[in-house]
Amino acid sequence: MNQDLSAPAPHAAVDASRHLIGLQEMPRARMEALLDRAQHFADGHDERRALAGVAVCTLFFEPSTRTRLSFQLAAQRLGADVLSFDASTSSTSKGETACDTLKTIEAMGVRGFIVRHKDDGAVAGLAAEAGEGTCLINAGDGRSAHPTQGLLDMLTLRQAKGADFSRLKVLIVGDVKHSRVARSDLHALRTLGTGEGRSIEIRVCGPQALLPDDDTLHGCAVSQDFDAALEGVDAVMMLRLQRERMEDGLVASLEDYHRDYGLTLARLARADADAVVLHPGPMNRGVEITDAVADGPQSLVLRQVANGVAVRMAVLESLLKG
Amino acid sequence: MNQDLSAPAPHAAVDASRHLIGLQEMPRARMEALLDRAQHFADGHDERRALAGVAVCTLFFEPSTRTRLSFQLAAQRLGADVLSFDASTSSTSKGETACDTLKTIEAMGVRGFIVRHKDDGAVAGLAAEAGEGTCLINAGDGRSAHPTQGLLDMLTLRQAKGADFSRLKVLIVGDVKHSRVARSDLHALRTLGTGEGRSIEIRVCGPQALLPDDDTLHGCAVSQDFDAALEGVDAVMMLRLQRERMEDGLVASLEDYHRDYGLTLARLARADADAVVLHPGPMNRGVEITDAVADGPQSLVLRQVANGVAVRMAVLESLLKG
Amino acid sequence: MNQDLSAPAPHAAVDASRHLIGLQEMPRARMEALLDRAQHFADGHDERRALAGVAVCTLFFEPSTRTRLSFQLAAQRLGADVLSFDASTSSTSKGETACDTLKTIEAMGVRGFIVRHKDDGAVAGLAAEAGEGTCLINAGDGRSAHPTQGLLDMLTLRQAKGADFSRLKVLIVGDVKHSRVARSDLHALRTLGTGEGRSIEIRVCGPQALLPDDDTLHGCAVSQDFDAALEGVDAVMMLRLQRERMEDGLVASLEDYHRDYGLTLARLARADADAVVLHPGPMNRGVEITDAVADGPQSLVLRQVANGVAVRMAVLESLLKG
Repeated sequence: MNQDLSAPAPHAAVDASRHLIGLQEMPRARMEALLDRAQHFADGHDERRALAGVAVCTLFFEPSTRTRLSFQLAAQRLGADVLSFDASTSSTSKGETACDTLKTIEAMGVRGFIVRHKDDGAVAGLAAEAGEGTCLINAGDGRSAHPTQGLLDMLTLRQAKGADFSRLKVLIVGDVKHSRVARSDLHALRTLGTGEGRSIEIRVCGPQALLPDDDTLHGCAVSQDFDAALEGVDAVMMLRLQRERMEDGLVASLEDYHRDYGLTLARLARADADAVVLHPGPMNRGVEITDAVADGPQSLVLRQVANGVAVRMAVLESLLKG
Repeated sequence: MNQDLSAPAPHAAVDASRHLIGLQEMPRARMEALLDRAQHFADGHDERRALAGVAVCTLFFEPSTRTRLSFQLAAQRLGADVLSFDASTSSTSKGETACDTLKTIEAMGVRGFIVRHKDDGAVAGLAAEAGEGTCLINAGDGRSAHPTQGLLDMLTLRQAKGADFSRLKVLIVGDVKHSRVARSDLHALRTLGTGEGRSIEIRVCGPQALLPDDDTLHGCAVSQDFDAALEGVDAVMMLRLQRERMEDGLVASLEDYHRDYGLTLARLARADADAVVLHPGPMNRGVEITDAVADGPQSLVLRQVANGVAVRMAVLESLLKG
Repeated sequence: MNQDLSAPAPHAAVDASRHLIGLQEMPRARMEALLDRAQHFADGHDERRALAGVAVCTLFFEPSTRTRLSFQLAAQRLGADVLSFDASTSSTSKGETACDTLKTIEAMGVRGFIVRHKDDGAVAGLAAEAGEGTCLINAGDGRSAHPTQGLLDMLTLRQAKGADFSRLKVLIVGDVKHSRVARSDLHALRTLGTGEGRSIEIRVCGPQALLPDDDTLHGCAVSQDFDAALEGVDAVMMLRLQRERMEDGLVASLEDYHRDYGLTLARLARADADAVVLHPGPMNRGVEITDAVADGPQSLVLRQVANGVAVRMAVLESLLKG
């Protein structure tokens, strides 16, 4: 089972209207409806009866307290019963397969699962095994997808720049190769970024060793020159540098990375005067981003976090209500 | 204190109507009333006001995420406030005795405790120390008892085979010696298995080293020949093989165990054509049970899990309501 | 950031009406109002609508299951949504500063934080960074303060000895030097202990190496002679002996400590006949206190635990309601 899960999953087998596995196949109308509803929740509305009596469980095979808390708050504001299963530390898994764990908790009456897994395609694989009436939400799998992060980034961009993304220049910076956030952002930007004959301009910048060599970046303007790539952009989407890239030998040192790809106020001045800065967190302050930028007026980092709860409410409600 | 807890507990000191320590002394009428009520909950009914304002706490001195989740869901569906104390990892216990931990949380206003402990009799020992108005539910202690597992197994059998157990042939297979599940099942089967002059036929099968040498098996037909023991039975209750039995030298290898005591489709064909298969989970697939049996039409494994929540609702309501 | 937090915090920068950092600056009227309200909750009243829709989060950078459970129960009885972030074990902190963790969860919509930290002044430092509308409650920082413990000790004393503390003789025993509990108790006793020209008599007793050499004990009668210090006191407030004091070489052995500063029934007989005994728990039975005292009729240890929930309800309601 575990071997099967690490292989790319047969997405076709998964009902995209029942689960949220990725943003690649999500129609634009559905994405915009989710963002509209999320904006309603971001405006402070609760729906305490929406999921009353519905049990949801965070099922994390890879730890992430921030994402777990965000989903828990979202589920609570919808009135759901919320459970947590930390499969990364549970000594009860006792060699049980991920699928048996899912089916066991499902049998207890849990209808919604928020799943994080270190393997690409693992959540789709589990969704294919889930019973009817069960919904899975991918809270991040391998380097594949983190769809609620993608949606919250879109909501944040929309609040700052309006709903027409086709006029925007957006720059994604850093370790795109290993980033599920970048992949989900790219899918969403492409989906929302066309209109009236125009198309969003997506630039990608990072060290060659941290850029994907498959078709992930098709249509993007790729560069290793951060200063040049910043010229005139409307939004800079920074990625977190994982420390293990140093161990992998893909990055020489944090100092080198900061010199070449760290976002400073001086660099940010090259972007459009109204440019906004996003980061999925947690930030490596002084590495990919300086304090002055992270805490500055152009930073939307905390707005992203706030929007995360709203987007997850919209997703949970959409999949589990009624 | 800890020494006292590991000794057999003075059951007589514990009020069986206030706590659920084991099934040995439970009268048949009470057992059937609990199963009737559990069936009501299994049919999908909630009682969100039954335990409103009542706080219950899972107090696990030995980890078990599955059992904890099942009790949490049960308590939530009854409207209780649910807390969790993982005494197996808590660094706050700081040498505190189990009894002090219990009495401290009790003083906070918690009325129901769901207790798991590695030592035989530990839960009865704690119940004897608990204040009036406090209820303890044994969620598994040592090799002694796991009463809610016993009850959920009975509910599952009853759904499959009807309420008259006196006509049944039931086979329990595996490491009965170290199994609290088997002990609780044996008590419940004997309690429910007599009627109209007939008596249930209980067979037990497993390697000699894993069978108890006390009076646990009185009245059972004991055998080391799995194939023969399966002949014509109505239900096969498989037990989990703990990996530490290999380290203890009680089992030569997983392969040997599977060859002699693994339930395969071929073996299951010796049972009655309508025979059902139970397993308390988590399953060692390929060891005591094959995938084909575990996931086959005769398997009630997931039904057991579902019934677990219903049975725990019935127990919590019975002890804590009003 | 972490360095800043370990320095003494600029208390002046923190709005004492919005947060609860310590008891040093709390006016007597506010302290008494909190105790009055806590008594109401201790009498068994809930306010399930008081914090409906309000999210609070325990944010513990140092583990403490007892204190966390007490705050969780208090928040549940006020109807709040309760989250838990165990920063001491979270692998997601990933080098994130305590301040970024706070601001991230704050951005999710959490309004109340119950914070424990090993560094003096850490909670005040975080409170200074928190946004408007966010309340921090210090659940213990370094050796500085544990204000809800101080308040629950006062409520317990008041129930036993009446509201006029000015006539009392109170003895604090043990490792005052490293105790945040003792510091909060001292502030509260001084605040509540004056009236009608009289003043409470506070005695402090412990080995010289465990007594503070700053102005913590100003106005207290300090002694190394436990037997003499006990003469005629109305209340004995025992402190927990941390095992690491032996490693630090500040205490020779548990046996020595028990001989000199362990509270036995024989010693307690020197106190007033109606004297009461308090201990913040968890107790080292046989070290600073014997079983006979801990479980005897003069012990208020479990009453303290019960009052802890009531005091925390009063504090949470006061800071977060409306």
